Amino acid sequence: MGASPLLTRLIQSLQILPGVGPKSAQRMALTILQRQREGAARLAEDLARAVEGIKECQWCRNLTEESLCGICADERRDRAVLCVVESPADIFAIEQAGGYSGQYFVLHGRLSPIDGIGPEELHMDRLLARVRRDETKEVIVATNATVEGEATAHYIQDLLGDHVESVSRLAQGMPVGGELEYADGGTILHALQGRRRLGAV
Amino acid sequence: MGASPLLTRLIQSLQILPGVGPKSAQRMALTILQRQREGAARLAEDLARAVEGIKECQWCRNLTEESLCGICADERRDRAVLCVVESPADIFAIEQAGGYSGQYFVLHGRLSPIDGIGPEELHMDRLLARVRRDETKEVIVATNATVEGEATAHYIQDLLGDHVESVSRLAQGMPVGGELEYADGGTILHALQGRRRLGAV
Repeated sequence: MGASPLLTRLIQSLQILPGVGPKSAQRMALTILQRQREGAARLAEDLARAVEGIKECQWCRNLTEESLCGICADERRDRAVLCVVESPADIFAIEQAGGYSGQYFVLHGRLSPIDGIGPEELHMDRLLARVRRDETKEVIVATNATVEGEATAHYIQDLLGDHVESVSRLAQGMPVGGELEYADGGTILHALQGRRRLGAV
Repeated sequence: MGASPLLTRLIQSLQILPGVGPKSAQRMALTILQRQREGAARLAEDLARAVEGIKECQWCRNLTEESLCGICADERRDRAVLCVVESPADIFAIEQAGGYSGQYFVLHGRLSPIDGIGPEELHMDRLLARVRRDETKEVIVATNATVEGEATAHYIQDLLGDHVESVSRLAQGMPVGGELEYADGGTILHALQGRRRLGAV
């Protein structure tokens, strides 16, 4: 078909991006070459720099170019509360929601024996070490509400139960703005079990 | 929120890609940093090379890193037939459909007086020059089936009518596999007007 080799290679490379298939990679490549050349040059540079410079935070395993991430380095954040998440994207989500001022620990995954992911792969020893060093009082396990996420939460409960005052789990129930009519059965059951008295705090 | 500056900048830059907003840019950045570092480094390189190396073909204005694109340089392709398209993506689509063996000319847009896009911006003079030099017999105008695409087609008809044997336009009608029930009125009208006798060639 006589397409330019450089263009063909760019279309191929763009497909490493999540959710980008051959068709959208082609559209992306053509669009940036026609209308976004400066932006594309900047993107190339930012990508190279990020790949080069971004590592894991030594304390929480979040992504950062420093030895400690911005949150771990922030003296104003409460070291007594530690929120355990599956991925850095979860930290973004919780920070964007606002209202949480504790620290984090990123597992970069969840327990999944089928995929060969056990406690070592998730560096649970570093989680324990952090809890001990910070003398954490409360651990909030914010792994996803999936089977693996639940299993991971139970493992953490067993691991840390004796070292902290409480290990809690994010509440499960109806999402804010959610309509009962469209909620799945599991969500409705959890919402019923976790019901709270009106007027109670 | 303490996010890494390199990461923040990468998320910003990714948003030049068509169809990518803040949320999917964030997902892309985190995914490639967690799981696709090699691919990301390759993408950075391919992007930089494409931006640096890819220009317009001197004859057809398609994207290429050579002075002539693969199609213009291909001696086996029929120089008597020239297909005029709005963008390089249209060439991809026609080539992928197969069955066309002529040449192309890319306008990089369509006539749109409101946006200040006239014949000069689309380099209609180069289209005329190409038709004259190649002694083109047939011009197929494959601009989109939009108001601007139609206006552009009429302009080309006026410009080239005296220089070639025929100026044609892509057929309009029902898409293959399309269901009448879901087709819009304009498409159905065109399909009716352009009806063909069964058994006719």
